[in-house]
Amino acid sequence: MNDIKDLTGFTYSVDSIGRKLKDIKGLRPYVYRVDIENTIISNPDNHTVRKLSAMKGQYMDETAYENLLKLGDITVYEVYDQLVPEIPGELIHGMSIVHPGKVGKEYFMTKGHFHSILDTAELYHCLKGHGYMMLETPEGEFCAKELTPNVVLHVPGKWAHRSINVGEEDFVTFMIAPADSGHDYATIEKKGFRKLLIEENGKPKIIDNPKWKQNG
Amino acid sequence: MNDIKDLTGFTYSVDSIGRKLKDIKGLRPYVYRVDIENTIISNPDNHTVRKLSAMKGQYMDETAYENLLKLGDITVYEVYDQLVPEIPGELIHGMSIVHPGKVGKEYFMTKGHFHSILDTAELYHCLKGHGYMMLETPEGEFCAKELTPNVVLHVPGKWAHRSINVGEEDFVTFMIAPADSGHDYATIEKKGFRKLLIEENGKPKIIDNPKWKQNG
Repeated sequence: MNDIKDLTGFTYSVDSIGRKLKDIKGLRPYVYRVDIENTIISNPDNHTVRKLSAMKGQYMDETAYENLLKLGDITVYEVYDQLVPEIPGELIHGMSIVHPGKVGKEYFMTKGHFHSILDTAELYHCLKGHGYMMLETPEGEFCAKELTPNVVLHVPGKWAHRSINVGEEDFVTFMIAPADSGHDYATIEKKGFRKLLIEENGKPKIIDNPKWKQNG
Repeated sequence: MNDIKDLTGFTYSVDSIGRKLKDIKGLRPYVYRVDIENTIISNPDNHTVRKLSAMKGQYMDETAYENLLKLGDITVYEVYDQLVPEIPGELIHGMSIVHPGKVGKEYFMTKGHFHSILDTAELYHCLKGHGYMMLETPEGEFCAKELTPNVVLHVPGKWAHRSINVGEEDFVTFMIAPADSGHDYATIEKKGFRKLLIEENGKPKIIDNPKWKQNG
């Protein structure tokens, strides 16, 4: 936080092994910078890097996936989080970056997830790039929402969601969710999404997922 | 939402008197635009305009306040909200705009509030301008956090907060809070904040609030 002035000289506690204490952070106001150009936030508590090898089974075209993987285990997406106590009333927040690319005709995307507490919302504020959020409910409703800079998406409770980059540059969103919402990745990993977004004639198109498993 | 493409042709329900149904909005994903240049969001459910006359008793210098009011009942700040059901797990969100100006030495500011459910957080993402958030707890801790474009402030539960514009242009933030957090304006209206932010030698300075009432 050295780069951000604070009239009261507020500082953060550090524990015995040098970690910033997230429980302290959760109890006192703090600020950080969202650096859109360099796709990073200042002082993230957590940085998740999702490589292509971690996306096995998620893409429709398995041959294209294996061929791309042979060229190198590139990063498909990254998330920088600010961590707070996972209690009701608190908010987690951070930056999601989906890099540009395709596996066959299918765009680079996040794994996608339901929330563990199904009835919790999430907000996505697009900061850079061009993408879609693919959304679906356990009951079979679905939609895809286009995101460009300064479009905000409200994801209500129970809608699974996946970020998809349809552009040529990084697709960057700032996301906020209730801190106790949790992530259920397992359901999507097993079943997939009902719909996929592929490139056809240079444009995104929704198709049925041929690998979708109705009963997981 | 006419200006935002949607591959699935998703539309909104309207009730018998022509209102968009916020309960429907809360149940289906939706998008809107944050227009930073024109300080507005598309399709807000609610627009609050706080005039100078509504800020009576909030400023330190009552003579300066009355003199300014004689010149006209100008708008001090505005809020555009997206409304969702006020239930646990949901998120309210919108844009706050504090216009530039001073009452005597004291900068234009929002009334400030605690949350009705005290232990609920809020997030402020500064989009434009230069301001501070003044924060305090019921127990007497306080701090002031400087906000410039792309600085994000995390307000933990139980911290009252007030936006203050110390710049020459609009001070604009995008805010997100748990939908069930509620607003307690009454405590601040009665007691005030412990600390004020005034301009001294062209710079913001924290001072004790001479009108602060310890027991409300």
